[in-house]
Amino acid sequence: MNQAYFDHNASSPLNRQAREAMLRWLEQPANASSRHAFGRAARAAVDHAREQVAASVGAHPSQVVFTSGGTEADNLAIQGICGNLPPGRIAVSAIEHPAVMKPALAMQRRGWTVTKIAVDAQGRVDEQSLQAALNPAAELVSIMLANNETGVLQDVPALAAMARRHGTLVHTDAVQALGKVALDFQALGVHAMSLSAHKIGGPQGIGALVLDKRIDLQPLLYGGGQEKGLRSGSENVAAIVGFGAACALLPLPATQALREQLESGLSSLGAVIFGGGAERLPNTSFFAFAGIDGETLVMALDRAGYAVASGSACSSDSSEPSPVLMAMGVKPELAQGAVRVSLGPNNTAQQIEGFLQALRGELSRMRAMAALAV
Amino acid sequence: MNQAYFDHNASSPLNRQAREAMLRWLEQPANASSRHAFGRAARAAVDHAREQVAASVGAHPSQVVFTSGGTEADNLAIQGICGNLPPGRIAVSAIEHPAVMKPALAMQRRGWTVTKIAVDAQGRVDEQSLQAALNPAAELVSIMLANNETGVLQDVPALAAMARRHGTLVHTDAVQALGKVALDFQALGVHAMSLSAHKIGGPQGIGALVLDKRIDLQPLLYGGGQEKGLRSGSENVAAIVGFGAACALLPLPATQALREQLESGLSSLGAVIFGGGAERLPNTSFFAFAGIDGETLVMALDRAGYAVASGSACSSDSSEPSPVLMAMGVKPELAQGAVRVSLGPNNTAQQIEGFLQALRGELSRMRAMAALAV
Repeated sequence: MNQAYFDHNASSPLNRQAREAMLRWLEQPANASSRHAFGRAARAAVDHAREQVAASVGAHPSQVVFTSGGTEADNLAIQGICGNLPPGRIAVSAIEHPAVMKPALAMQRRGWTVTKIAVDAQGRVDEQSLQAALNPAAELVSIMLANNETGVLQDVPALAAMARRHGTLVHTDAVQALGKVALDFQALGVHAMSLSAHKIGGPQGIGALVLDKRIDLQPLLYGGGQEKGLRSGSENVAAIVGFGAACALLPLPATQALREQLESGLSSLGAVIFGGGAERLPNTSFFAFAGIDGETLVMALDRAGYAVASGSACSSDSSEPSPVLMAMGVKPELAQGAVRVSLGPNNTAQQIEGFLQALRGELSRMRAMAALAV
Repeated sequence: MNQAYFDHNASSPLNRQAREAMLRWLEQPANASSRHAFGRAARAAVDHAREQVAASVGAHPSQVVFTSGGTEADNLAIQGICGNLPPGRIAVSAIEHPAVMKPALAMQRRGWTVTKIAVDAQGRVDEQSLQAALNPAAELVSIMLANNETGVLQDVPALAAMARRHGTLVHTDAVQALGKVALDFQALGVHAMSLSAHKIGGPQGIGALVLDKRIDLQPLLYGGGQEKGLRSGSENVAAIVGFGAACALLPLPATQALREQLESGLSSLGAVIFGGGAERLPNTSFFAFAGIDGETLVMALDRAGYAVASGSACSSDSSEPSPVLMAMGVKPELAQGAVRVSLGPNNTAQQIEGFLQALRGELSRMRAMAALAV
């Protein structure tokens, strides 16, 4: 398709190196648990990829548990940690991805209580709210490193240190942060961290949970005992190899300049940029124009050749205003206008220029229509 | 590698059509939940693949829930069905794959009891044992269609009918049966059926649970609400498309004649063929020679250029005798000799001939060594 793709936070295209690494394993039979030469070759490839993933986040290969993606990694962290503890309390930031929020809420049926940690108007976790959520102690706190919608970054090292002082275990969803900001598992001071391959140019269907090995995790999937019993199922060799290759290429190419070009144009068109006052991922811009419906604008931009998202792509079936923006105190009318541009390696200044031009045209048209309707 | 690959029950190489179908989706960004043109194209591809998978087993597309593989499908069936019921009893055949047996046993921690259904010396479910397991009623019974080690087929329509008369829900693991015998979800009379792509020439990392829609299933993975909320996580578009393409090619090419050639040779060498008196998959032969260690033989055959399995590839880290053979009453000494040949589309009569020749040589060598040791 001859479209400019500005939706890398939803899924980024597979890069050439990851694709080439995968192709061999799409040609050769390989169950990494088999003992014959084919199986041993597959095992060696999985081991190598595990080293690549671990190295990209400053972890030891033995700390990496491969999963079917970021959602499974988040679920394994939340359900897996809680599953081995007597029911207690989970504290999650109010802006977590549904892959963290929903399993946390599901634990309520098993006797757990869930506390939401507030964020400020810029989408940053409120330290006082976290402090309150830690008294009386919570068993587990989950705070994402970078938000998928706004790109706003949390000061996870400081927040995790607060939690650790209360003996609370800490999980962070780093799916959107990987490759876009420097990540060091030790320095973050968390006990578990979720990663996904297809946000960094690796394949879909593969992710990882990086674990402090002192954590006693209850598996979600039982069976052949792969991944040291923490995640059964034949290893997805080609996808694992592709994930490793994508990690080896990190960090992702810089997009900061393109984002500045974009937001300078957006501001001149009167956009409100959500989380614009906070530290953010360098590729993400989440914005709205007063009186303009986000869905309608997204569809108009799609017809004009620009693929962008409204609200979160991961739950785009919903037309509710974004819970992330609600937690930030954004008015529902404005939140309904939310549009996300998330940039990736192949985007160009020319595409941004074309996008701003198309946007200007669509805004004029939509405003003219609205004026007629009045 | 210049080896003959005889381990298709562990993982079968990706066929050309499935690979070509996948390649497009390994080049183009695609989150099937996105509303722009890229996302809609991915959604259409997923829908098409869902139709292909459903058609291959006589189900409706809306009955297909895509999972990350057979293990997840089995876990979703067992944990998902039990998760929405008050604790009761699960009955599973004694020869189930670990992906069924282990989640069933894990439900014991949530108050469930597990009853194992016995099999006869040929590996066929004993109807009286099933009858006993249904009185008092079990909530769920799981009986695999074809065993991964022996290939022995169960009369699932008759067994499921017995269970249904007691109001018991029925799951069948059809991972090994798909493509090798005719499968019709309605005719089987089960409520849930597990499938996997990489046993039929589709990619690893994708499978499906086919469901009677009256079943109320608790998800394993919570998040963005994909698969009607039954399995969250960005759809693995390329893998789903590859699975669909592989299903569209079913049934798999016949391997019956090769298996007969193989077993005629095995018998003349004095092999015991496990389940040889029962209806079996046409591609599987599980056998042993008295006094010959299976592991040692497998490694010797590997060096000679033939990739075969000892016991079950899915848990080949274990050196315990196969639980399947134990359930069939095979003596542990003989079970330690177990070797599995599982044939696939590209195997040839020449390979079988070469294999039998290599096997004859290895057996002589091993017997000579054993005689020396005495």
